[in-house]
Amino acid sequence: STVSLAVIPGDGIGPEVTAEAVKVLQAVTAGGPVRFDLTEYRLGAEHWLATGETLPEETLEALKGHDAILFGAVGAAPGDKSMPSGLIERELLLKLRFSFDHFVNLRPSRLYPGVASPLANPGTIDFIVVREGTEGPYTGNGGVLRAGTPQEIATEVSLNTAHGVERVVRDAFRRANDRPRKKLTLVHKHNVLVNAGQLWKRTVEAVAAEFPEVTHDYLHVDAATIFMVTDPARFDVIVTDNLFGDIITDLAAAVTGGIGLAASGNLNMDGTFPSMFEPVHGSAPDIAGQQKADPSAAILSAALMLRHLGLEKEAARVEQAVEADVAARTGEPRTTAAIGNAITAAVS
Amino acid sequence: STVSLAVIPGDGIGPEVTAEAVKVLQAVTAGGPVRFDLTEYRLGAEHWLATGETLPEETLEALKGHDAILFGAVGAAPGDKSMPSGLIERELLLKLRFSFDHFVNLRPSRLYPGVASPLANPGTIDFIVVREGTEGPYTGNGGVLRAGTPQEIATEVSLNTAHGVERVVRDAFRRANDRPRKKLTLVHKHNVLVNAGQLWKRTVEAVAAEFPEVTHDYLHVDAATIFMVTDPARFDVIVTDNLFGDIITDLAAAVTGGIGLAASGNLNMDGTFPSMFEPVHGSAPDIAGQQKADPSAAILSAALMLRHLGLEKEAARVEQAVEADVAARTGEPRTTAAIGNAITAAVS
Ligand SMILES: CC(C)[C@H](C(=O)O)[C@@H](O)C(=O)O
Ligand SMILES: CC(C)[C@H](C(=O)O)[C@@H](O)C(=O)O
Repeated sequence: STVSLAVIPGDGIGPEVTAEAVKVLQAVTAGGPVRFDLTEYRLGAEHWLATGETLPEETLEALKGHDAILFGAVGAAPGDKSMPSGLIERELLLKLRFSFDHFVNLRPSRLYPGVASPLANPGTIDFIVVREGTEGPYTGNGGVLRAGTPQEIATEVSLNTAHGVERVVRDAFRRANDRPRKKLTLVHKHNVLVNAGQLWKRTVEAVAAEFPEVTHDYLHVDAATIFMVTDPARFDVIVTDNLFGDIITDLAAAVTGGIGLAASGNLNMDGTFPSMFEPVHGSAPDIAGQQKADPSAAILSAALMLRHLGLEKEAARVEQAVEADVAARTGEPRTTAAIGNAITAAVS
Repeated sequence: STVSLAVIPGDGIGPEVTAEAVKVLQAVTAGGPVRFDLTEYRLGAEHWLATGETLPEETLEALKGHDAILFGAVGAAPGDKSMPSGLIERELLLKLRFSFDHFVNLRPSRLYPGVASPLANPGTIDFIVVREGTEGPYTGNGGVLRAGTPQEIATEVSLNTAHGVERVVRDAFRRANDRPRKKLTLVHKHNVLVNAGQLWKRTVEAVAAEFPEVTHDYLHVDAATIFMVTDPARFDVIVTDNLFGDIITDLAAAVTGGIGLAASGNLNMDGTFPSMFEPVHGSAPDIAGQQKADPSAAILSAALMLRHLGLEKEAARVEQAVEADVAARTGEPRTTAAIGNAITAAVS
């Protein structure tokens, strides 16, 4: 069979790391029953600067026709005054997540053997964050009254629905149920954000009844950041809202050795729309085009895609190859392509 | 002269640590020109359980008449079903912060010599967070529609005003200007929370013009958590909103060796209302009444109060005594009172 894959390399280091992910993908599936048919889409800050387009309706329509999307990174060089701040993130990246109802933003965190953590005693870190991807403070709700005056009022509205919370909580319980430790932690701030917090809490209690083997606990987001540096081994599956998930997954990436290894999947678990796979890192314009970026996060994101598409064996092979490569690193710098080639060779 | 001080010991370890802070306060001011006149208020979860009162209007009125408030900690034992979750935090602690217009929530973070950080290479950590205290997602705005049904919608509204942002940003610049490094970092998420984010960004740019010697930069909150574990030495003064400030100050406390040392001041910089000083830690019901709590954070909060009241010399003496005590710790457990007595002796 054929998987129709859209590739959006994006800006900065995006094209470099995506190229390596594609190499690995093609190598690991070569000769197998599933063939990847690639279509590249030029989108991102550079494309906007050249054309004024962020994500035209026709392109969104075309992307809808694919089975999955591999995404690099987007973002102009900082200080590029011609690019309004956050525009490409909102009009391209978030627009894709929202248009394609990517309600599960899956972000695994593992401290690989051989990787140095900034923590003195990291312990065994191996958890996943199930971040809600279509609600919360990310909905673009809110507004400004009397902008630029001493009477200015600016609001941000976090929208949370039973529909949105329940589906992501159930997904997180399912994943917890499939893991050996079977433990779920809800992260929120329900003592202050009472309305949203109670909805999340009640939903976790209700869905827990369907998963008698999964134990669950609760942490306020502030306390969760403390445990992330004092005892990250305590986490197995974390479920949380869009903004708290954004914050704690960057922190989780940091304690597991940096965003060079952090993969993510923006999943539409209904299968109504294509899911999208992207490294957690950004476009890093300062090192773009220099073959300095680590493509591991992009490659691991491709592995998440393989698993999502049911290609578990191939996913595991890619992950093992990355793990072996990482373990063998000596600190001697290698180019982006050198790392990609080594991993490609290992899965071939 | 006489300082009229309200003391709210609160719940759990609150009374134990507050008692030590009071001892130190009385010792360091003994024989000096300023006398502290103390009035104790019984408020908190236990008081609510006994009386049904959180913070009666008359008590709020009475508190208004004091020059400052020393606050211990509040919160019922977790799992105490008779206490609605977050009630005492909102109806007592947050009510005091909002009623007394505590717009600067000042939270210094220092890694004291001799204290073990969970970070392998912490470097020199010495920064302050100026957290906005009266706006943002903490205003209790938002609501619930169709609660408990599959159509439930829960909202949280973050309110941000030019008035509120400007005064806290100016305060942060002033503090940065008084510090040797003179560096201010705005932490927000303006690429997603555009309305509030732009107000904060514009305000920082505008106020920066009044402080030509202060350099300033910007970090998204997710990136800020990364730097907090990879390079906390980069921070000098952080200014941020109420929720982001809540999150990063707990993380900051963790990387500087734990919330046992984290002090805070809820400041009304106009002098219209009494400012309130409290350790960042909670009531820790699990160790309450056992003389196991470290009173250092409460004592350091009293030092912040001394400084706020203009008693700089006394504040510095308390801080030096805590620093010396901490540096001399051997790991041998000491009671709350033993630590308090040692610091009291050192400032006497
Ligand atoms: C670029 C930005 C909009 C995005 C987010 O906030 O979700 C990023 O930080 C992430 O975590 O994928
Ligand atoms: C107890 C809670 C309401 C409070 C807050 O969120 O501000 C606490 O976490 C703090 O940081 O002082």
